[in-house]
Amino acid sequence: MEEFPGILEIRAAADRIEPWIHRTPVLTCATIDALTGGHILFKCENFQKIGAFKMRGASNAVLSLTDEQAARGVATHSSGNHAQALALAARLRGIPAWIVMPRTAPKVKRDAVAGYGAEIVECEPTLAARETALAEVVARTGAHFVPPFDDLRIITGQATAAMELIDDCGPPDILLMPVGGGGLMSGSALAAYHLAPGTRVIAAEPAGADDAHRGFYSGTLQESVNPKTIADGLLTSLSELTFSIMRRYVHQVVTVQEVSIKAAMRLVWERMKIIIEPSSAVPLAAILEGKVNVQGKRVGLIVSGGNVDVGKMFE
Amino acid sequence: MEEFPGILEIRAAADRIEPWIHRTPVLTCATIDALTGGHILFKCENFQKIGAFKMRGASNAVLSLTDEQAARGVATHSSGNHAQALALAARLRGIPAWIVMPRTAPKVKRDAVAGYGAEIVECEPTLAARETALAEVVARTGAHFVPPFDDLRIITGQATAAMELIDDCGPPDILLMPVGGGGLMSGSALAAYHLAPGTRVIAAEPAGADDAHRGFYSGTLQESVNPKTIADGLLTSLSELTFSIMRRYVHQVVTVQEVSIKAAMRLVWERMKIIIEPSSAVPLAAILEGKVNVQGKRVGLIVSGGNVDVGKMFE
Repeated sequence: MEEFPGILEIRAAADRIEPWIHRTPVLTCATIDALTGGHILFKCENFQKIGAFKMRGASNAVLSLTDEQAARGVATHSSGNHAQALALAARLRGIPAWIVMPRTAPKVKRDAVAGYGAEIVECEPTLAARETALAEVVARTGAHFVPPFDDLRIITGQATAAMELIDDCGPPDILLMPVGGGGLMSGSALAAYHLAPGTRVIAAEPAGADDAHRGFYSGTLQESVNPKTIADGLLTSLSELTFSIMRRYVHQVVTVQEVSIKAAMRLVWERMKIIIEPSSAVPLAAILEGKVNVQGKRVGLIVSGGNVDVGKMFE
Repeated sequence: MEEFPGILEIRAAADRIEPWIHRTPVLTCATIDALTGGHILFKCENFQKIGAFKMRGASNAVLSLTDEQAARGVATHSSGNHAQALALAARLRGIPAWIVMPRTAPKVKRDAVAGYGAEIVECEPTLAARETALAEVVARTGAHFVPPFDDLRIITGQATAAMELIDDCGPPDILLMPVGGGGLMSGSALAAYHLAPGTRVIAAEPAGADDAHRGFYSGTLQESVNPKTIADGLLTSLSELTFSIMRRYVHQVVTVQEVSIKAAMRLVWERMKIIIEPSSAVPLAAILEGKVNVQGKRVGLIVSGGNVDVGKMFE
């Protein structure tokens, strides 16, 4: 087990990033508890800087660089929360950042990244175009590539969210995480393994992007083929790294329907008055669908809110 | 000054309602602070039961009844947060509640009130029809009328929100409150007078419903004539009671434009990831418009979220 981050690494990451992040609160909701029969602990990473737990991993990666590495800056490709997280972390360290974004990325996302002082490199909206553009940036600038999830520094940073949840509320019976690329799932599973060994770790994903589910039950890494879901943070496939962590530390993987994701998201908006993104509604959707029985259980969820465009409400 | 609730009454109300309400957190936002130049303390009554501070006043009123009074139940007319607050408070005391609602009230509101076990009495959407329907209910049932704001028990209950804000964060330089009927404004101004005598209390209202502003500067109680604003919690006019509290304990009244209310509301949704209703955005709108200079100041706001229909986001 020595190959993956242990509790010392997770605690060290928490200490390292502490000046750059918020210790977010855990909220509960009597209505949702009554509806589900469980006691749901919402770790509010939607209140985190940039609106998502991604600030933890990006900060840990940027703070792990030597001064020499850092001086050349950092680069990534992302149109989501990781883009903003890396841009802000780079600004906090005072180093340049290059963010490859598809030209179709919403203006609000581009503005946010540019607002943190990062340089946006446009590309066509395909994975191949993103990777090519990133390789060019790295070759030209010498910047250090900080991937969105396939990286132990990122995973260890994301692990600090579940660590705080467990430290603040005690070990939950169930830790229920969304899975896309698997950074949050991996970090959370490792944190639970070390800090809450009795906690059952369950990953939830949209049926329309079910590569983790297929991979978990077939034992072979699967690719997302033409994934389709409103949970736009979960379109990515697992990597070899996050797949191997899932196989070792996750107990179950479930899938949910789109209609349940929307219902779960709306329930949180209406009853908790907090804004969460579709990806973060996937675990609650699994509870609402009865895929995970939470009767009488304490259940930890980590919610983000960066990937939401509220513009429709204000038209 | 003895005619209005003092600190003993406010503390007594806080103790009385404590088992029925949440002690809500105070959130801050680095982006909004940077934008405004102040340090804004958001007292999150959107996380309060039923989503608004109205639960405080309704609970205080219901808990102030004698057993004999309570046994006959309570009644009110409201299509907003007070309706749900009174319905829930009545359920918690185990007494009946009759809520007069205009037949045009949104289904989500009616469902919420009915969900708390209250009986809904439909009427035409005019103030006269409401009052007639209420009088009939009271005559028929002997229920005790709990008005939405024109009542010292309500005002004293609402005062506990500002009391908690001051207790938790220390006296702010400015307390900036929206004003509709004046229940929250009155309670907050009284709390500040007794607990934070150096705090400047400012009321903000939509230019489209500016009866408090006209009343404050003319010295005579004014009526809202055909008020028009998205801040649907602020359509009501002040009463003699809340007008006299305003004249004695409020330092300034400002008005804001509709476009600023929308911008302020969107800013909070996008950057704080919390849902607040238009009425609660009015004080921040006053800051954004420059009507209140908060440079270097600590500013307390109380935000609610009950009067929001998020349905548009999920169409």
